[in-house]
Amino acid sequence: MDESFWWERDNLKYINGQLYIGAQSLSELAGSAGTPFFVYHGARIRDNLIRVRTALENNGLSYTIFYAMKANRFLPVLTYLKTLGLCGIDVSSPGELDLARQAGFKQFEISYTGTGVSDEDLDVVQRNPQIYFNCDSISVINRFGQRCPGRKIGIRINPHIGIGHNSSLEYAGSQVTKFGIYQDRYEEALEIAARYRLQVTTLHFHPGSGYLNAQLEGLDKILQRCEWFLDRSPDIDTVNIGGGLGAPQYAGEEPLDLEEWARIIARHLKPRNLRVQHELGDYLVKDAGILVLKANTVERKENVHFVYVNGGMNLQNLPAYYHINTELVPLVLDQTSPKQRITVAGNINEPIDIFAQEILFQHVSEGDYIGLLNVGGYGSSTGSNHSMRGKFTEYLILD
Amino acid sequence: MDESFWWERDNLKYINGQLYIGAQSLSELAGSAGTPFFVYHGARIRDNLIRVRTALENNGLSYTIFYAMKANRFLPVLTYLKTLGLCGIDVSSPGELDLARQAGFKQFEISYTGTGVSDEDLDVVQRNPQIYFNCDSISVINRFGQRCPGRKIGIRINPHIGIGHNSSLEYAGSQVTKFGIYQDRYEEALEIAARYRLQVTTLHFHPGSGYLNAQLEGLDKILQRCEWFLDRSPDIDTVNIGGGLGAPQYAGEEPLDLEEWARIIARHLKPRNLRVQHELGDYLVKDAGILVLKANTVERKENVHFVYVNGGMNLQNLPAYYHINTELVPLVLDQTSPKQRITVAGNINEPIDIFAQEILFQHVSEGDYIGLLNVGGYGSSTGSNHSMRGKFTEYLILD
Repeated sequence: MDESFWWERDNLKYINGQLYIGAQSLSELAGSAGTPFFVYHGARIRDNLIRVRTALENNGLSYTIFYAMKANRFLPVLTYLKTLGLCGIDVSSPGELDLARQAGFKQFEISYTGTGVSDEDLDVVQRNPQIYFNCDSISVINRFGQRCPGRKIGIRINPHIGIGHNSSLEYAGSQVTKFGIYQDRYEEALEIAARYRLQVTTLHFHPGSGYLNAQLEGLDKILQRCEWFLDRSPDIDTVNIGGGLGAPQYAGEEPLDLEEWARIIARHLKPRNLRVQHELGDYLVKDAGILVLKANTVERKENVHFVYVNGGMNLQNLPAYYHINTELVPLVLDQTSPKQRITVAGNINEPIDIFAQEILFQHVSEGDYIGLLNVGGYGSSTGSNHSMRGKFTEYLILD
Repeated sequence: MDESFWWERDNLKYINGQLYIGAQSLSELAGSAGTPFFVYHGARIRDNLIRVRTALENNGLSYTIFYAMKANRFLPVLTYLKTLGLCGIDVSSPGELDLARQAGFKQFEISYTGTGVSDEDLDVVQRNPQIYFNCDSISVINRFGQRCPGRKIGIRINPHIGIGHNSSLEYAGSQVTKFGIYQDRYEEALEIAARYRLQVTTLHFHPGSGYLNAQLEGLDKILQRCEWFLDRSPDIDTVNIGGGLGAPQYAGEEPLDLEEWARIIARHLKPRNLRVQHELGDYLVKDAGILVLKANTVERKENVHFVYVNGGMNLQNLPAYYHINTELVPLVLDQTSPKQRITVAGNINEPIDIFAQEILFQHVSEGDYIGLLNVGGYGSSTGSNHSMRGKFTEYLILD
């Protein structure tokens, strides 16, 4: 029997029934390290990065990629990315800026894209004259200009079109969101920048999180809408298209067609001889990361077969926040086991602390390990110590 | 002009336009301590506790109250409650158990009510022979019995009726939830307890979170449903009615009628000569706590007036998780200012990071402080370091 699962790939698959990430058996790691733990595969992060670079290069684009560290700030991951030398890093707070520098990134390799930016935050940016700062409001342009006249900046606009894995993950759209400067006040923004001799060299937008092929048409429209802004900004030499590239979450979802994605970008940017910047966060780390938990209680309650695991929504909040269920997999495959429907619950005393409802799964016994796929981004970096259940370890696998 | 707000009370009100908690001006604290910070009022916590005790006493009930520390584990709050000597403490994990003991609680003052309880958790409970343990599954009864034969236990049942501030906060109901043992397997649970000579002395249920007067009828029904379980459990001398008492969140919501609440409990428990236990978490601390943030960016975007503050959903997640908006108040009241509709956004780069949408509020300038009321529970205790914006301080006000 050699069934293959939709999420299996060269460096993440069952070998003799044991789930491996690269050369590392996850059961072996669980047995020696204890659970819960997050494990990240360096090679997958690198492959994800190179895939995007290749698509941009194939379409003749000049580009810079910044890794958005809010997705995952595990220091070995940051250092690994720095040593690869294929991307800069994007930060959203003074703490992240410090951490980026701790991991070896130089100021000129850092962009700063925040929301709700305070004076205290700007003071830190001022002390780092070589980082590149994207302003997402007129107030921030004003306060940044007072501190750093003459410096180059990006302006984050809101294109009024959003794309994302579902509507709660759209960062722009028909409703007014908190992000960016809208068309109605863009010229005012440029005037204030000019008052402080700020050179607006980048147009920035961020459309949403987790977009796939069906949303590429939306990206096309956003880039078209950028024309209006670009026509008014002669100093702009770069368009930062934010982040938000999605990875398949469910069986049947097609991976994003990066060639088509890059073609759309090239069609808009190349005629104007513009460089592209890209803030890749989740896309780099999401499918490189797995959270491993142990089933500690298996029990039927009425007609529902519950499996309780030793971690909760405080370690992985996508189901609770965004109703996106991650794929759950056994670390040891039992192909002889008849499948049954199970509901997987976390160990936090809240009713929304459920990882999966009524999914088909092999038989689970207490003590078995379960892996949650696609949690390399916004897992550990947004974890809490709710009910003092926040302990976990992290591992970067490089072999 | 001396307008009074629905949430004002003796120890939380404006004095000469300055918001005070007890004798502490919050502006003064914000100015000296910096923001973000949580502030808790000891006297309010005590009053909340005494109010519940009085209602139970007025209705002739014997009772024990355990403070559910998952709501707030700030050590000064725990120590303050211990020194009051009016309640025990309920924990839901080994970490919480350790912390309760660090704050001075003795083993016999501690109850342990967990979900997804692991063998490692049970080993810790075993090492604390005097704490009282509530079992919420048959698997746990079995594994607890193996470790601690002969010990007293509570059994958490699921009454199939839920009550809460909204449906996502119901812990029981027509749908099967992860909590408790259902009627269909209760007799099996008793048999397994008997196998290990475990004395089942408490029947435990937890109906949901944040219930108010409209839900008291549901509580009545739940207690009625308990009769079936009690009829089968001759050793039970105590019913633990969980937590979940709600505090008003919006103008117009009536406070819970504690006399009526206690009458309902007495009607069911007194004829059977049963003691009542109660796990008060949120109810004790919720309205005693305020999160103070600073407005750092004030900006109109199209027709929406945004106020960005220096904290986000990582410090207060009720709006993001449960769509419950907390009441926002200025620390310095300006009664001359014409009210306008504002949207208050946090400093986390996620679209759901919004504290309030289009609420009527006095004019806000950058640098002004805003208080979020009713965040004493499940605020700091569930906070995360998302985007490295997790820094805050906490203050217990005792004067």
